[in-house]
Amino acid sequence: MLEDKNQARTSLSELGEFGLINHITKHFTLKQTSTVKGIGDDAAVLEASEQQTLITTDLLVEGVHFDLSYMPLKHLGYKSVMVNLSDVYAMNGSAEQITVSIAVSNRFPLEAIEELYAGIQLACETYGVDLIGGDTTSSTKGILISVTAIGKVNKEDVVYRSGAKDTDLIVVSGDLGGAYLGLQVLEREKQVFQVNPNNQPDLDNYSYIIERQLKPEARKDIPKLLQELGVKPTAMIDISDGLSSEIMHICSQSKVGCKIYEDKIPLDPQVISTCEEFDIDSTMVALSGGEDYELLFTVSIDDYDKIKANPHLTVVGHITEQAAGMNLVTRANQEIELKAQGWNALQS
Amino acid sequence: MLEDKNQARTSLSELGEFGLINHITKHFTLKQTSTVKGIGDDAAVLEASEQQTLITTDLLVEGVHFDLSYMPLKHLGYKSVMVNLSDVYAMNGSAEQITVSIAVSNRFPLEAIEELYAGIQLACETYGVDLIGGDTTSSTKGILISVTAIGKVNKEDVVYRSGAKDTDLIVVSGDLGGAYLGLQVLEREKQVFQVNPNNQPDLDNYSYIIERQLKPEARKDIPKLLQELGVKPTAMIDISDGLSSEIMHICSQSKVGCKIYEDKIPLDPQVISTCEEFDIDSTMVALSGGEDYELLFTVSIDDYDKIKANPHLTVVGHITEQAAGMNLVTRANQEIELKAQGWNALQS
Repeated sequence: MLEDKNQARTSLSELGEFGLINHITKHFTLKQTSTVKGIGDDAAVLEASEQQTLITTDLLVEGVHFDLSYMPLKHLGYKSVMVNLSDVYAMNGSAEQITVSIAVSNRFPLEAIEELYAGIQLACETYGVDLIGGDTTSSTKGILISVTAIGKVNKEDVVYRSGAKDTDLIVVSGDLGGAYLGLQVLEREKQVFQVNPNNQPDLDNYSYIIERQLKPEARKDIPKLLQELGVKPTAMIDISDGLSSEIMHICSQSKVGCKIYEDKIPLDPQVISTCEEFDIDSTMVALSGGEDYELLFTVSIDDYDKIKANPHLTVVGHITEQAAGMNLVTRANQEIELKAQGWNALQS
Repeated sequence: MLEDKNQARTSLSELGEFGLINHITKHFTLKQTSTVKGIGDDAAVLEASEQQTLITTDLLVEGVHFDLSYMPLKHLGYKSVMVNLSDVYAMNGSAEQITVSIAVSNRFPLEAIEELYAGIQLACETYGVDLIGGDTTSSTKGILISVTAIGKVNKEDVVYRSGAKDTDLIVVSGDLGGAYLGLQVLEREKQVFQVNPNNQPDLDNYSYIIERQLKPEARKDIPKLLQELGVKPTAMIDISDGLSSEIMHICSQSKVGCKIYEDKIPLDPQVISTCEEFDIDSTMVALSGGEDYELLFTVSIDDYDKIKANPHLTVVGHITEQAAGMNLVTRANQEIELKAQGWNALQS
């Protein structure tokens, strides 16, 4: 929320489209053996493969998906890659390439675009994916980022949303609700800052949940872990809209019901303490908060012994017959129907 | 430019994101055998292939790339697919799938989005490509479309921009300049309409060039034709920014020069007559106009006999040594240096 007024500002129109593309992509190196040709021709070329190809795309719009008053551009670049890689991992695949298209208004100088691409580059290096193409244009308002991720998966390993069976266990990676609460803290600090710009926020007590919001990590490790454990999920999805909305996708596509146990939902201590401070129910935050980018999957009950002791994985419930509906079993042992209350981009 | 005030208007927020996606994609059917899974999971899944994969993406922004006061939404949908397929064909490949992401402000009712997707669907059916994914979100202003196209090419058939050799012939498909002139006619009619909304424009004399602007066709037929003729281009690019800019890309990536002969540039009679009417030089329009989506390629001089009589192809010049520069030979037999004056999205 603090801006350096002396920072250099280079106008994008000085460079032109091709100059800008050259400038921002010169630091990117290709690492994947499957990338035959990256940026610089009419299309990128990927090597033939005995594996299946995964394709996923997401669009992030300023003022709808992010607020630059507390989202640094470097983090935005990183996160825009994460939300796409997360979808590839949710198919039990490995991500290999991305394309990134941006539309920016002329209020952004070159240095802002460099920051954005520094985050994209960090994500590429950390996750071992190649930037192979994209488009760079102007917008009449704000900034917009469209990322497409390309991945690979063995035909026998691909996991859809539709394979969950009655009695399967429902498992989540990591913990839930942090990203949503981090956003609440950032929104509160933004309002404080608007009243008193000299106020220096003390965010030490919220470092984990703010990082979950600003710099989420896609769970590249989970498909690998599952392979090592000898477990193939029956269904999988990434948690972008909250546990409730995602399990409902799995249930409706698998034509099954589910029971989620409230006391099993994994929550970080900082999520619990911040929920108390904000007087919000932590279960609601986990069910409906969104943006955690953890993986939600189902496994056969026969695989329970393989996953039960793993610190990355938590069994939160089980699949039922479709007729039993989709329910949350509360701490008071009451069953209440799950509702999708995930954040809906079209309602904003 | 005439709006039916009585048309139905359904608010997008009534449907929600998933409702909208279901509504607009239910009419799309999958035709490609390579599409294992289309819309409806975290990522689309494409079959393994012995061919290389081509990936290309373009972003179209209202107020930058198109003006809805004369671009019907159905045409916009069609064109947004064409500009991407054109890039796949420019690699000498075949297009198989697309993803389409849109951001729309709430000024657009559902019926507008249906029109847009009707154009996308028509393009998919006409060109035999599958819509396999995308993202649908709101924007704070206007409409924005991001399309990614996925194609296939045999490793030995792929054509880059970088393979042109001294003495190669320079060839274009179709004719040039029409799309730019069509835009000039539409801009003029828009201004007339603003002065007198009751004026009914008579556009019969401009039907070809207006269609070139509003409903361009990507040259799917050219890679097929070249294969039938037994010709593999040494370099190829699609003409989105004008002949001048595109041949300069080929020359710089191939490290060669070129001579383009003014009197060889293929022009439709309607382009010539409209240039006279607007008092613009038709050569400048072909060199710098852009949006024609024809293919520009180079072939060995040994292939001349195979292409010379083909009505779809015109030899417009030849490749030279790099030291000779990139030149236009005028009708008066003067050599002038080519300059890239293609339309630059970042200058607007």
